[in-house]
Amino acid sequence: MNIDGVHHRTILLNDDGWSVRVIDQRKLPWSVEWARLDNLAAAVKAIRDMWVRGAPLIGATAAYGLALGLREDASDAGLLSAYGRLLETRPTAVNLRWALDETAAAARPLSGDARVEAAYRRAAEICEEDVTLCRAIGEHGAAILKAIAQKKDGPVQVLTHCNAGWLATVDYGTALAPLYVAHDAGAPIHVWVDETRPRNQGASLTAFELAQHGIPHTVIVDNAGGLLMQRGQVDVCIVGADRVAANGDVCNKVGTYLKALAAKDTGVPFYVAFPYTTIDMGAADGDQVVIEDRGPDEVREIQGRGPDGVLTTVQITGSPAANPAFDVTPARLISGYITERGVSARLPVADQRG
Amino acid sequence: MNIDGVHHRTILLNDDGWSVRVIDQRKLPWSVEWARLDNLAAAVKAIRDMWVRGAPLIGATAAYGLALGLREDASDAGLLSAYGRLLETRPTAVNLRWALDETAAAARPLSGDARVEAAYRRAAEICEEDVTLCRAIGEHGAAILKAIAQKKDGPVQVLTHCNAGWLATVDYGTALAPLYVAHDAGAPIHVWVDETRPRNQGASLTAFELAQHGIPHTVIVDNAGGLLMQRGQVDVCIVGADRVAANGDVCNKVGTYLKALAAKDTGVPFYVAFPYTTIDMGAADGDQVVIEDRGPDEVREIQGRGPDGVLTTVQITGSPAANPAFDVTPARLISGYITERGVSARLPVADQRG
Repeated sequence: MNIDGVHHRTILLNDDGWSVRVIDQRKLPWSVEWARLDNLAAAVKAIRDMWVRGAPLIGATAAYGLALGLREDASDAGLLSAYGRLLETRPTAVNLRWALDETAAAARPLSGDARVEAAYRRAAEICEEDVTLCRAIGEHGAAILKAIAQKKDGPVQVLTHCNAGWLATVDYGTALAPLYVAHDAGAPIHVWVDETRPRNQGASLTAFELAQHGIPHTVIVDNAGGLLMQRGQVDVCIVGADRVAANGDVCNKVGTYLKALAAKDTGVPFYVAFPYTTIDMGAADGDQVVIEDRGPDEVREIQGRGPDGVLTTVQITGSPAANPAFDVTPARLISGYITERGVSARLPVADQRG
Repeated sequence: MNIDGVHHRTILLNDDGWSVRVIDQRKLPWSVEWARLDNLAAAVKAIRDMWVRGAPLIGATAAYGLALGLREDASDAGLLSAYGRLLETRPTAVNLRWALDETAAAARPLSGDARVEAAYRRAAEICEEDVTLCRAIGEHGAAILKAIAQKKDGPVQVLTHCNAGWLATVDYGTALAPLYVAHDAGAPIHVWVDETRPRNQGASLTAFELAQHGIPHTVIVDNAGGLLMQRGQVDVCIVGADRVAANGDVCNKVGTYLKALAAKDTGVPFYVAFPYTTIDMGAADGDQVVIEDRGPDEVREIQGRGPDGVLTTVQITGSPAANPAFDVTPARLISGYITERGVSARLPVADQRG
């Protein structure tokens, strides 16, 4: 990822070798503020309060969070407690549990400093692997965009929902990685960015990323994508995933299902991009996935830049509100899965690495 | 409609007998402010800038706007000019053209004061008729809700999009009229209120209306309705319409199409409520309807109550934005049309009054 032309990752170790640096994504797009996580509580807070979000980045942060927890208490009880506190931060993204399981498995056989070091090492590997996986997703998905580009005049019109870009991963992204690869290879791309209420990850994060990378884009309200597809203004939809069930049902940011329905109804191909770490073979189908209900104030309030240029939260309604954060897109609505292993109309088997 | 327990209409003549009073709906739900329209320019501004909105109320305001215009210039040129300026305020709602045609037809054969009086008289009739039509829509639609109530425990769960209540009409509403009638008859009702970005007519207007009438409701983001239908938490969808084509395609607030798709996919009945004045037999199907594109700042900015209690506009993104205001729901997705003539699976013929 590039911020003002300088390459970064979304999460990395500080020079002290143990504390962790992440972008406080709640401040984007208005300012890029790095936050230092120097204990378990800080990592828990960063995930729960969505300083970081996106299934792969949640996983990476949780892995380092477990290492930070072990640094405070490397006992078996400390490991168990840190694992539990991190696991309960967000219920839907399966990468969280996967990364915690991986890091705990690396640490458990050891003790003391060696246990801590093993956790840090596994966390670093998880980050490296995520970069590799996302780069592969980008290469595979770009082929779809390049093929569309060859068949039409003007830019390939892509619609995406929420943010599944480099801000949702350690680097590159999942749904957006193909766009970056295709754009860098010279394919003309224009992106319709769903603003993605209630937290506006599209308007705040996806639009920011695309601008930093120089990809033309237009923000639309979540209501508008169906009309654009009816009008023939969308060539392809690509979204990410928070958890993919064994039958190929995709749990992703709420509203994804509505766009998949519109894509099916209008004949627009609908792709979902994710690494194997997002597949949950333990969930037979989407009905098995726990949908996170978040607080109603995320619906009732919104943050923006006030007339004085200061970030301000305004109340947009005082009414009762409900805030389910995800929905399930049935496999029957999905044209293809873009993973590190390629593009496939069927879900790849999750227990084989790409 | 009731505001703090007192019955009102959304538009009425002032005691002077010629100036018009409307609610400045941009200030709702935070304050109820009445605006005085005392010339053609004020009526044009009130419609174009959405102090008033909703197809029937746009029609009623335009009718009085024409009368105000004739009061300034009762010549044929004055009539033509006022008609043209009012017609171009909003392109999609067909009630606008219908009401202007009706009022102009009443005024055209006359001249001078008689012409002005005829326009005022026809405008008043249009308002009276709208109340009658909406009351009939309410009675017919309530039968659907009462039938559902009899078959289940707990409240009838209704989902609605945008605002098609008394604030969109002269009184009672279209989509919400059945809810008011059923609630008043003792049927338990709970309403899922789509916030309806970008202008949030659901969160600001529908939630306000329902609260004033004492009907339980919960505001959700526009992305959430599909999930609620998947979960079986919606018994029926009812929306209004801005223009209904001869084949039954419905042009309504952008995002309606997405909810209709989800309703079809999950087996939830999807009804559209409107009076005959919303039918455009001149449009063979939805493709013939002009979709209004509004300014991008409606997407990029949002108004709410700031920390100091003052209404504040904040910028939620600085990115390029597009703002199509309506979409088309194909007739094949619609379970039934609720009009003044009853509930029908097919569009009633428009040239016969109910």
